[in-house]
Amino acid sequence: MAGPTDRTFSEPETEIMEGTYRALREYGYADLTMKHIAEECDKSTAALHYHYDTKDDLLVAFLDYILEQFVAAIQAVEVTDPAERLDILLDRLLAAPADHPELLVAMLEMRIQAPYNDAFRDRFQQNDEYVRYMLKAAINHGIDEGEFADVDAQHVTQVLMTIVDGARTRAVVFDDSQALEIARSAADEYLDAVLTVSR
Amino acid sequence: MAGPTDRTFSEPETEIMEGTYRALREYGYADLTMKHIAEECDKSTAALHYHYDTKDDLLVAFLDYILEQFVAAIQAVEVTDPAERLDILLDRLLAAPADHPELLVAMLEMRIQAPYNDAFRDRFQQNDEYVRYMLKAAINHGIDEGEFADVDAQHVTQVLMTIVDGARTRAVVFDDSQALEIARSAADEYLDAVLTVSR
Repeated sequence: MAGPTDRTFSEPETEIMEGTYRALREYGYADLTMKHIAEECDKSTAALHYHYDTKDDLLVAFLDYILEQFVAAIQAVEVTDPAERLDILLDRLLAAPADHPELLVAMLEMRIQAPYNDAFRDRFQQNDEYVRYMLKAAINHGIDEGEFADVDAQHVTQVLMTIVDGARTRAVVFDDSQALEIARSAADEYLDAVLTVSR
Repeated sequence: MAGPTDRTFSEPETEIMEGTYRALREYGYADLTMKHIAEECDKSTAALHYHYDTKDDLLVAFLDYILEQFVAAIQAVEVTDPAERLDILLDRLLAAPADHPELLVAMLEMRIQAPYNDAFRDRFQQNDEYVRYMLKAAINHGIDEGEFADVDAQHVTQVLMTIVDGARTRAVVFDDSQALEIARSAADEYLDAVLTVSR
């Protein structure tokens, strides 16, 4: 896998994405309009439509954008130790979202569109696969080095993402960022149990 | 705790709840109307409004109803062995929903209303607490019997519900009932790791 998406973002497109981020935090998904996004990035709605035909097209691009951001942040981390890398990935997945709860709400609102919106579903699927690919790389590295037990890395990453998604859902439904801390600890307990090499 | 909710359901109310169940599976939450529910239970919308002022009132009652159903099904199980009881609870939470994926979609749609609807949020919170209360009872029983390690039962039930909610979210977003099986196995692996008494 080269990059997570095939998409690149020009400077005006990046401005639109940053405006979308702010507009989603402010209005949530249900009340989001192209006008809100246009206002947040100081552009006309015509300028938005020049880049994206529909609001859905723009939001699909936004899903690509946040994955790119996530991956770039992870790739900037030069830590290669497998256990430390897993730690950093899980912190990013579970600790960072506590800083912007409104975005968690908007993202879950978008995720629940998946049954009715194939483009959204494809993108969430692709993002999930890419995050699991990064987790798996760290796990397989640890197995190769003899640091981790010889687990089914595919299964372990699916369990980790189940914990991540459960925490995010619970943080939104119960308005409780503690859900993220509980999950962070659950992930550690689970990894300790399955990855520890018996000596 | 006596029962999970203070509510009792008369015969017509039970019919309305059963109709709501079918209507939610058929139309989802977003497209659900009182008319749909009335048709599904062969009543007039006036008859529905006699029992429930608004659609939201009716849906809050529905959330109580499915918790009552869940608890009744669990209480009918006369198994007292702690490990077996945990198994049965987790099967109910994770295996049973695979039989009605449309209800999982509708329930997640209702859960994402929580940030905007206090009555829904209170009910989801209360349901979650009651399910965790049942899980905790089985865990504490196992600890008392010396079958389980002396864990923080509160934390363990929060982790289990994180796995349950993650699986349900993933089953809906990815239209993949395998998410429930993965979570069922994750719950077992986690419980094995934390509950096993070192001898």
